[in-house]
Amino acid sequence: MELLLIGIGTGNPDHLTREAEAALRSADLVLIPDKGEDKAELAALRDAICDAVAPAVLRGRFAVPARRADAGYLAGVEDWHDALAAAWAAAIPPGTGRVALLVWGDPSLYDSTLRIAARLRPAPLVRVVPGITALQALTAAHGIPLNDLGRPVVITTGRQLRDHGWPPGADRVAVMLDGDCAFRLLDPAGVHIWWGACVGMARQLLDHGPLAEAGPRIISARAEARARHGWVMDIYLLARHPDSGP
Amino acid sequence: MELLLIGIGTGNPDHLTREAEAALRSADLVLIPDKGEDKAELAALRDAICDAVAPAVLRGRFAVPARRADAGYLAGVEDWHDALAAAWAAAIPPGTGRVALLVWGDPSLYDSTLRIAARLRPAPLVRVVPGITALQALTAAHGIPLNDLGRPVVITTGRQLRDHGWPPGADRVAVMLDGDCAFRLLDPAGVHIWWGACVGMARQLLDHGPLAEAGPRIISARAEARARHGWVMDIYLLARHPDSGP
Repeated sequence: MELLLIGIGTGNPDHLTREAEAALRSADLVLIPDKGEDKAELAALRDAICDAVAPAVLRGRFAVPARRADAGYLAGVEDWHDALAAAWAAAIPPGTGRVALLVWGDPSLYDSTLRIAARLRPAPLVRVVPGITALQALTAAHGIPLNDLGRPVVITTGRQLRDHGWPPGADRVAVMLDGDCAFRLLDPAGVHIWWGACVGMARQLLDHGPLAEAGPRIISARAEARARHGWVMDIYLLARHPDSGP
Repeated sequence: MELLLIGIGTGNPDHLTREAEAALRSADLVLIPDKGEDKAELAALRDAICDAVAPAVLRGRFAVPARRADAGYLAGVEDWHDALAAAWAAAIPPGTGRVALLVWGDPSLYDSTLRIAARLRPAPLVRVVPGITALQALTAAHGIPLNDLGRPVVITTGRQLRDHGWPPGADRVAVMLDGDCAFRLLDPAGVHIWWGACVGMARQLLDHGPLAEAGPRIISARAEARARHGWVMDIYLLARHPDSGP
């Protein structure tokens, strides 16, 4: 079996590359995750992409297993990936040649599909098709570079920022997978934030400014978007002047 | 004037997104940089993309000014951006409505077009269309995630790695703009490298392995590719086990 992991961007069908369109059309089966009613809109977005680009390709559904809350974080993720691999395998009829999965953003960045794919037996041939990440949609929407001139950038998670604070040596930090606005816990002095929710989509929300002023606005806007739609996907970039702190 | 900064990926026309295709077709003029004979192939790639996607759009050329070698690095870059902004302005006929620039990779990542655009007077309306970066093409080609599970990643330059060594606190480091294989200067113990040149293109070269073994192979392959084609664009990801050192 060949497994195509296709990066689809942040939910805007126009984020698809020509390579992604061709890959999707070439599949014998597209696997669509079903995460339950509160995230039905996300499955619908995947269906809309298939409708627009590859209406003739067969679609299979698999239920996304619940994540155990009782284990530690990493152990919980490992168990969850095992369960997801089993769910994929159960949804793929024997003898299927080429199976596609549509991956939000890019399969390389804070995404589990490569790790789940590695659990399948027999091992499939895996092909990755890169896609636009939320980070690129964020910087494009704000019209800003990710890095200062010739300087490094750290990409990290809300959990890391919460547990370990500002990464050592960094003057720009992009934060993903932050369900709890970990920027609240930083000393806001000298920090600028560029934030976006549902970046690249019609309902995109953007804000930016000094963290002390923009932070509270962002917390409100995020909570409101989440209450209205049942979910929100957001991302932000923080910049601190290299001279402004440790 | 409206200025479209369109990310085009790493030289493979199939990296273009649907958004990039539409933006390019909507332009009144596409500006193509002319970097001289040894990089004529890069201008030709831009032409090939225009031929494939938007053959009817007018193309304008501008000569890329030489970079001063006598100033410091940052001062040299600032002067060069000034000269590039003047070259753009001279190549855009008065009254042109919408001008497109094709940007390798994504305009947010180690790219100058946003900074050059900010120098134009009167200030244009700038719209950024995200594109696939070499980093995404690299991880896709190797079929690997950029980050360890839930862990941060540092994106940096060859110059930073050369001058400052392994970034503090990082276990994965992606290195761009490295003309001199700065990985040579690292202690290779416990370090793995995934390298690619011309990633995503037909002539793509890939290698990976423990740095002590793969490093010398990569230095040879890079020199050979450069000798053959007159230029080479490469990128690599380094991983060090969090337990393996300071």
